[in-house]
Parts: sequence; C-alpha cells; structure tokens
Amino acid sequence: MERVRAGGDQVSELTTARLSVYLRCLESLDASGVNTVSSQGLAQQFALNAAQIRKDLAHFGEFGIRGVGYYVKDLKRHLRQILGLDRSIKVVIIGAGNLGLALADYAGFRQDGFDVVALLDTARDKVGQYSRSGVPIRHAKELEWLVEREKVDIAVLSVPADAAQETVDAAVAAGIRAILNFSPGSLRVPPHVKLKSMDLTITFESLSFFLANGHIDA
Amino acid sequence: MERVRAGGDQVSELTTARLSVYLRCLESLDASGVNTVSSQGLAQQFALNAAQIRKDLAHFGEFGIRGVGYYVKDLKRHLRQILGLDRSIKVVIIGAGNLGLALADYAGFRQDGFDVVALLDTARDKVGQYSRSGVPIRHAKELEWLVEREKVDIAVLSVPADAAQETVDAAVAAGIRAILNFSPGSLRVPPHVKLKSMDLTITFESLSFFLANGHIDA
Repeated sequence: MERVRAGGDQVSELTTARLSVYLRCLESLDASGVNTVSSQGLAQQFALNAAQIRKDLAHFGEFGIRGVGYYVKDLKRHLRQILGLDRSIKVVIIGAGNLGLALADYAGFRQDGFDVVALLDTARDKVGQYSRSGVPIRHAKELEWLVEREKVDIAVLSVPADAAQETVDAAVAAGIRAILNFSPGSLRVPPHVKLKSMDLTITFESLSFFLANGHIDA
Repeated sequence: MERVRAGGDQVSELTTARLSVYLRCLESLDASGVNTVSSQGLAQQFALNAAQIRKDLAHFGEFGIRGVGYYVKDLKRHLRQILGLDRSIKVVIIGAGNLGLALADYAGFRQDGFDVVALLDTARDKVGQYSRSGVPIRHAKELEWLVEREKVDIAVLSVPADAAQETVDAAVAAGIRAILNFSPGSLRVPPHVKLKSMDLTITFESLSFFLANGHIDA
C-alpha cells in the first residue's frame, strides 16, 4: 500500500478514496439544501462508518462543531482543497480509440474540475477531429509542447499494451508527474511519478471468483 | 471490505486481486518456458512479497514442493480454477456508447476466457451493428432472453448515470448475479448479487491528491 504524507501523518490510498466518497455525499446533501450533518447522519444516509469518517477527517484538521456536526458547504470546500480540486486539473488522454474518446467525454470530469485539454494520437485520420464533447485530437508529437504550454497535470493512457511503456516514457520525459493507465501489463516509472493502473482483467476475475466461490459476507 | 468464503476461510477482495496478479506473472513465466519458480523467485522478478504469496496461496491448498517451489503450469491451472476461469465466462455489456464499444473490444477479455456475447442498447441506429471485433449490438429488451439462452454470468453497465439504477434492476430481474458498473453514483442491488463499481472520478481524485500533497512512500 502506498501512502502519502499529509502534515506528518501517513494517508493511504484507501483514505483518499473514502475522502472522494465523502465529497460525493456532501455534494448530494448540498444540492438537497442540507446545511449541517453529523458523522452519524452521513454514515446512516450513505451506508458509511461514522467512526471511520471522524478518523479520516482527523488527519487533516478539526472540521466538526460540537452539537452541530459539520457545515456541509464548509466541509465540501475543505475536502476539495485536501483532494487538490480547488483548482482546475489539466488532463491529456493519449490514445484516441474508443476508450480514449469515452474518457474524454466522461461527464464526471467536468463537474469535478478536471479539464481534458486534448486527446493525442498518431493516426492521420483522427488528428484534427474532435470528440463528441469537443475535445480536440492532436498529434502525439505535440505532447511535450502541450504539457509545457497548458501545464498538464495528468496523462491518461489508452493505447495498445505494446505501445504502453514507450508512451509512459514519453509522458515522463515531457514532465508529467501523474499517469492513469488503462493498458494491461505492468509499467515502469521513475520514483517521482505516480502511476495508477486500472486493470480491467483483475476486476473481472474478482467477479468470476465470486461466481465460482459463492456468497459474500459484507 | 467484503470477504468471500473459501473452504471456511475468509478471502478478501485484495487477496483475489493478488491472485489475479500472480496468474499474470505465471502466464508470463510459462510463455518464457520457465518450468518451476519459488515464491522468492516470483517475488523478485515481479516486485511482489514472497511471504504474502505463500499466505495467499495457503488459503486454497498446498501448491509448493519443498526444494522445487511451484510448477508453473500446475499453479497457473490451479489459480485459473480458484478464480473460476476454468470455464468460459459469458458477459453482456449494456450501453453501446464509446465506453461499451471499447470494453467489447478489450483484447484482455478473450485471452482470459471471457466471452462478450452481446452489447445491448436501445438506439435504433446502433441495434444490428457490430463492434470492431465483431460483438453484435442487440436491443436492450432482449436482455432476459439472452441471459437465459446464453447463460450470461456478468453484466457490464456503461449507460448514463440517470439510467444506471433501472438498468441494474433489469439485469437483476433477468437473473444476473454479478455486475460491473462504470456509471458514477451509488447503486442498490439485492444481497445475492455482487456489484463492483469503477468510479473514475475517485481514481482521478487520488491522483489529484498526490499532486497536491507531494511525494509518496512506497
């Protein structure tokens, strides 16, 4: 398990995933006009664990007020700040196949402050086109220039497996520090670069295991 | 953390994910003509933990042989069996947008014994077409019939968020017991159905957290 330092504490990726979930819950409460909520209230409404919520938030400061709980708007703002979402995050997607196009048009991104500045590809018939939501497809050789000019934060890899490592290397050379990889197989990055891989095969195999081995205890 | 029973033991989803990784490693060794490997050898070559490998495998039986280690082909076969991959797993993908099409053509599936029998959609101009790799797009109303006739194991959801819950309900009503969901937001399933959600927003926010909070300790 990788851990990120937050003010001396060690914060696991499971914690950051839970912070994302809390943020979703608070957005939903805020949209319904709810002003304050207790950790118990949050836990009950969204099937979470109240003690875990308090523990996770305690890594980052004192957000609750005795007898009131949390101010929904305040905690939402704090969580966005903790998650680095208080600014626009620039993303390039490398590989403009079906998956790359699907990711470029993923509605969740824009709501969340992620800004997909370009799709990159080498295919002549794709370069110069646009995704359905209007993301331009540029030539992959523009990567370095784009990263510098647009201050790109995250590169998403949706290229065939046999092109994945050289694409990662190019992204790292262009100055990218965070990569989300959708290609199968393991990839190497230098220590200062954060790589997350979404291996769909592993996810499917966990469902297959469930089907083969019967019931699950929650 | 959900846990699946395996012969009286409790096996977490993290364990099944590691089993999938071990299987990938063994496939790679087998393809290179390696006959036997020790847990130390596996750990060294693939940056894994030898004690963890032995512990994970011990849930399912005695696979190592003193002085030899594991027979690569045997352990591969055992792992495929444990993961329920010793038979073809039938998959339908509901939603034939870019993401659904990308998933239908995902090469990792076929190698692994997953058989995508159909994409389902309601759009007239899509029904009757095929994905690039030849998966037929059928009308969503054929779901129940398909599940029964083809003995479909897994439904993949790649529909817009506002259609996700009704699609899950239809899949459950059709007899599906395992669902992989790519739509944002939380979904309800009855206890006998296994639902896994891939929330891309959460994955992106964990990268954003890394960028905002500096370096990572492996």
